[in-house]
Amino acid sequence: MRRILIVNPNTTVSMTRAINKTAQAVRASNFEIKTINPKMGPESIEGYYDEAFSVPGLLYEISRHHDWDGFIISCFDDTGLDAARSLVAGPVIGIGEAAYHVAALIGNKFSVITSLSRSIPVLEQNLVKYGLDNRCSGIHACEVEVLALEKNLNATKATLSEKIIKIKKREMADVIVLGCAGMTNLAEDLTVEHEIPIVDGVTAAVELTSALIRMGLRTGKRNGYAYPNSKLYSGEFAKFAPK
Amino acid sequence: MRRILIVNPNTTVSMTRAINKTAQAVRASNFEIKTINPKMGPESIEGYYDEAFSVPGLLYEISRHHDWDGFIISCFDDTGLDAARSLVAGPVIGIGEAAYHVAALIGNKFSVITSLSRSIPVLEQNLVKYGLDNRCSGIHACEVEVLALEKNLNATKATLSEKIIKIKKREMADVIVLGCAGMTNLAEDLTVEHEIPIVDGVTAAVELTSALIRMGLRTGKRNGYAYPNSKLYSGEFAKFAPK
Amino acid sequence: MRRILIVNPNTTVSMTRAINKTAQAVRASNFEIKTINPKMGPESIEGYYDEAFSVPGLLYEISRHHDWDGFIISCFDDTGLDAARSLVAGPVIGIGEAAYHVAALIGNKFSVITSLSRSIPVLEQNLVKYGLDNRCSGIHACEVEVLALEKNLNATKATLSEKIIKIKKREMADVIVLGCAGMTNLAEDLTVEHEIPIVDGVTAAVELTSALIRMGLRTGKRNGYAYPNSKLYSGEFAKFAPK
Amino acid sequence: MRRILIVNPNTTVSMTRAINKTAQAVRASNFEIKTINPKMGPESIEGYYDEAFSVPGLLYEISRHHDWDGFIISCFDDTGLDAARSLVAGPVIGIGEAAYHVAALIGNKFSVITSLSRSIPVLEQNLVKYGLDNRCSGIHACEVEVLALEKNLNATKATLSEKIIKIKKREMADVIVLGCAGMTNLAEDLTVEHEIPIVDGVTAAVELTSALIRMGLRTGKRNGYAYPNSKLYSGEFAKFAPK
Amino acid sequence: MRRILIVNPNTTVSMTRAINKTAQAVRASNFEIKTINPKMGPESIEGYYDEAFSVPGLLYEISRHHDWDGFIISCFDDTGLDAARSLVAGPVIGIGEAAYHVAALIGNKFSVITSLSRSIPVLEQNLVKYGLDNRCSGIHACEVEVLALEKNLNATKATLSEKIIKIKKREMADVIVLGCAGMTNLAEDLTVEHEIPIVDGVTAAVELTSALIRMGLRTGKRNGYAYPNSKLYSGEFAKFAPK
Amino acid sequence: MRRILIVNPNTTVSMTRAINKTAQAVRASNFEIKTINPKMGPESIEGYYDEAFSVPGLLYEISRHHDWDGFIISCFDDTGLDAARSLVAGPVIGIGEAAYHVAALIGNKFSVITSLSRSIPVLEQNLVKYGLDNRCSGIHACEVEVLALEKNLNATKATLSEKIIKIKKREMADVIVLGCAGMTNLAEDLTVEHEIPIVDGVTAAVELTSALIRMGLRTGKRNGYAYPNSKLYSGEFAKFAPK
Repeated sequence: MRRILIVNPNTTVSMTRAINKTAQAVRASNFEIKTINPKMGPESIEGYYDEAFSVPGLLYEISRHHDWDGFIISCFDDTGLDAARSLVAGPVIGIGEAAYHVAALIGNKFSVITSLSRSIPVLEQNLVKYGLDNRCSGIHACEVEVLALEKNLNATKATLSEKIIKIKKREMADVIVLGCAGMTNLAEDLTVEHEIPIVDGVTAAVELTSALIRMGLRTGKRNGYAYPNSKLYSGEFAKFAPK
Repeated sequence: MRRILIVNPNTTVSMTRAINKTAQAVRASNFEIKTINPKMGPESIEGYYDEAFSVPGLLYEISRHHDWDGFIISCFDDTGLDAARSLVAGPVIGIGEAAYHVAALIGNKFSVITSLSRSIPVLEQNLVKYGLDNRCSGIHACEVEVLALEKNLNATKATLSEKIIKIKKREMADVIVLGCAGMTNLAEDLTVEHEIPIVDGVTAAVELTSALIRMGLRTGKRNGYAYPNSKLYSGEFAKFAPK
Repeated sequence: MRRILIVNPNTTVSMTRAINKTAQAVRASNFEIKTINPKMGPESIEGYYDEAFSVPGLLYEISRHHDWDGFIISCFDDTGLDAARSLVAGPVIGIGEAAYHVAALIGNKFSVITSLSRSIPVLEQNLVKYGLDNRCSGIHACEVEVLALEKNLNATKATLSEKIIKIKKREMADVIVLGCAGMTNLAEDLTVEHEIPIVDGVTAAVELTSALIRMGLRTGKRNGYAYPNSKLYSGEFAKFAPK
Repeated sequence: MRRILIVNPNTTVSMTRAINKTAQAVRASNFEIKTINPKMGPESIEGYYDEAFSVPGLLYEISRHHDWDGFIISCFDDTGLDAARSLVAGPVIGIGEAAYHVAALIGNKFSVITSLSRSIPVLEQNLVKYGLDNRCSGIHACEVEVLALEKNLNATKATLSEKIIKIKKREMADVIVLGCAGMTNLAEDLTVEHEIPIVDGVTAAVELTSALIRMGLRTGKRNGYAYPNSKLYSGEFAKFAPK
Repeated sequence: MRRILIVNPNTTVSMTRAINKTAQAVRASNFEIKTINPKMGPESIEGYYDEAFSVPGLLYEISRHHDWDGFIISCFDDTGLDAARSLVAGPVIGIGEAAYHVAALIGNKFSVITSLSRSIPVLEQNLVKYGLDNRCSGIHACEVEVLALEKNLNATKATLSEKIIKIKKREMADVIVLGCAGMTNLAEDLTVEHEIPIVDGVTAAVELTSALIRMGLRTGKRNGYAYPNSKLYSGEFAKFAPK
Repeated sequence: MRRILIVNPNTTVSMTRAINKTAQAVRASNFEIKTINPKMGPESIEGYYDEAFSVPGLLYEISRHHDWDGFIISCFDDTGLDAARSLVAGPVIGIGEAAYHVAALIGNKFSVITSLSRSIPVLEQNLVKYGLDNRCSGIHACEVEVLALEKNLNATKATLSEKIIKIKKREMADVIVLGCAGMTNLAEDLTVEHEIPIVDGVTAAVELTSALIRMGLRTGKRNGYAYPNSKLYSGEFAKFAPK
């Protein structure tokens, strides 16, 4: 049995549950998937500051499961991805990264819909770093906060529909990427409604991580992803750990 | 049962068999994989001209299987990829493209080892098109012809080992990509020997195509990948078809 | 006497004649120009699939004239350009490529008007490959099929005028490039009407090819453009040849 | 009196003192500069993981001084820069960023010398993000750990000299950037010895931050750098705080 | 006492005075700043041609002050910057370049407002050369000639306000750059009115030049900025010199 | 009869004569070509400073011939190209620019050999501006001054041969560009000797300019290349004019 750990760096349990539901739905038969969130950190990650404070808890959870086969960071900003990659042997994938790579396999250009416009610069910087910025035809914000997205799915769906219609009119996108873990249950319906492939990051990440594990591929450790010399801040971890 | 068609655009049957062996080894339980090569076209694809003449046969085979769930083009140049994508509904992946995306998920930079230096410009142009050229730390040629690669696996392995040692010394590669379908059986051994992850394109493509199929994702058809208006050149296909 | 072969990879004879008329009008005195189209292939090239099926016939015609001094591929997608370059000694130029280079010599930025929006991704990918994407201020589609363009020149001209007016209003283009062989007769009139230089690809390609021939420059054969090892698929050519 | 806070995210006090010495030497008369390090976090930052664990302490210190006029992050990786920028009104500058911008003002190309090769990918990614990667002619590692750098200044200087000689021979660098806070005292001597301008990040950051403060310029808050909605994790801060 | 020479390559004395007023207002206590304009050259620089004719006079003035500590070219096109850099030892900064680097330190993206649209290509080319084009979210022209800008400051301010409001609505700019020396007195008022940081090039250049001088940094002379071999065209200078 | 003016911005008459000889050899029958050099300016252009002082004389000569059909700037740095383009209606081409575009039509990558390494940054910046930097596989300096190049053609040829051999060994260049007007007579011999196409800028520029003239294409005047508002500095021209 292979084991994949999904860490939702947002500490909101209902969001973690939604992510888990999506993930379990695409779990392969010989895989175990566990979805957790750190005890400590922001309820929802909206911008650079929240990201920074979500990382220690995220790394703590990954560290506790270091012998698992693969890891998914379930925040569309791919928070703490590089640090996590250096911490464990198994592959680590962010749901943003996963969605972009999958979208690039089924279209020439993709457009992204995210929650708040304050997140757009983070996503742009990630795309430049991954090299996939030239495949992206636009990033759009719903201007709905992450937690509100899942609370009112009907309103969220209506907002997304409106955005998709605008994108289809104005951009050369072949594919839409849903850029927030909170939208994870809507991809299928929207694909049918708007006749354009819609990629959900959680699903994409579960598939890609499973694929890497099956191929026996682990993160290359020669350069930036070498294991840290530090003693894993175990003292600090104690402080982060739930009381 | 989901069905994946692998087309080896090189018409050499022994190479098609080797590809099939690699592919079947990673086939998921509810998938059928068939590996074929066109009856017509170059025995081995070495450069732009061979590519051009391999495409009609390749498209003919894909067209004959148009209702299959997914398609793999098993030539590292990703020959005819865009045309194939416009021809069918199911996702189409090239083994070069697949290898680059997988390598980008387990390392910051990857280096590529291919057969002949005449193929380097094709690979460079593909990387630029995909956006992943900034993730590539070098492309190296063995200067061994494609068919010779599989005929003498020991010599091929020695040559690859030598290249890997040089790359590890001179480049910041975290990952090695084996850039030719003829090297498909060597990835595992070389990974162990050189302690660096090595990505084989055939394996990567089978995994990614299966993943896309499971996710229900098909090629976006709004722009460049719209179905062709032509009547599929059925008259021409007749000429291509084996007598 | 130097000889230039123009191959129109669209098999529509009336289009070939229009191209020939434009080409002969700019022929230098010591040059012979012959414009032909393959017997086999799509009547009009609209997208990747048509491109793929136009290439064998195109290469067959070039191969039959391999000792000519220079070659022009008269489709704005520059279909089969790299393969053709590897096949013969003399220079080979695509009309898209020719138009972009010429436009870059008389302006800082150029905008392109093409036939259908399904062709835009092909043109974008070519511009990235050539390096001239940063010189392009926009690509616009008339949404008129290639063959319809030449059938109703008045309507085509009106549509182009409308596009040019919009471009002048919204983009920093210094030059307009007419991105389809079917628009070849309209460049001069539109230049006068809209007071902006308009580049026609056929004219540009005849001039550039003649220039390369006069300079004694042939395609560099050291890397990707080395002659193919294959025996030119003579058996296959027989099948392509008209009965 | 204007106040600049320098936070050394490495928790090694001797390094903080060396940074402070360099900073005070260039302090303008109407400025106060305080250099501190967080109580919690890695002794020296070597790679992504250490970076991640240095950020909460770094942000805590910046938060405690939120009404100061400007802030410097004294780690060449520019650890936590974006998060810090969103946290306070006054400008925040990383010493890596500062050094690159200053080098770009006195040369066409600069080369960087850093501590360990595991840091090279971080620096490359930063340069791409800042847009200054096309100004960088090379990044080189001394392969000396950060804390060892300052312990044995003579050996460090010899190693740096060797690197500078090699760079002058092989690269078109007009300027050398010393890419580690631990090298901060050597810039002046090496400039004289090697007749090439050498930029130290701490000095550059003090000058640039002072300049921004004098100009009354603060971080733009409209998009990614908007203040966080979170209540600054005050509970968490309590845990980070020294006991 | 350190000395900075500001050369306004526009020969309009009232503009030189306005620049000087701005510069003196930010002069550090131990610095002397002199602002001059050449006796010869265009009254206002609007485009490439004017630029070309402003350079000899500009270089003559810099040459006459070659032993000064630093130099500022007070035209937003950074006219003659590379040539000036090769002529003297002390650092030379253009006000365009200065503004872009400063803007990049307080925001992720900046938008530029300049005088005439004919200047936009020059600014775009400079941004590409500096590497900061990916940090720029737009360049906008007021369509007011340089000399008219300062003659009617109220009208200029109204035009700028209108542009700023549009930019805030349509672009992800965190910062506005005022792209013309003639707008130099308006930055402060507009910052307050529009609640977005506004960078003035003259102020930025004085600060950055002072900083480089204090750091003892001079232009790297190994490659393109080596001193000219020519005898400084002293004969020609005689002709340029005022009678 | 169409008239092309070639201006050699180097004031060395023997170099102008050599350029003229090369140009007349490729002159088309219905064209007149005149090659001149300004009376004023540097004997040989080596770097930014010389460039700056060559431009007024260059523009004066172009201005005097403003009604000619086309213009060539015969310095590989493409000195004053943009200013010249704004000054006249007919097309203006630099020999560097011409050589790069021609090389890009006969190869995937080209390498450049120039005179002195101090010129390399200028050429790099031009290539980035033109968009053709991604087509360039290397720029190499002979370290021979411009005037020495033509004085001792045998030594120059030997040096160039050595460089070509190195390039063929180390770079993926399909084509060599001779990057200095002083090398203009050697291209043909070296092509034969080294079996690689070699492009001479003067020849390329004559061909391209003639082609543009025949096509009736003139510089687009809508944006940066609009005619200058200035009264052409007639007073200044008087000073530049020969006594």
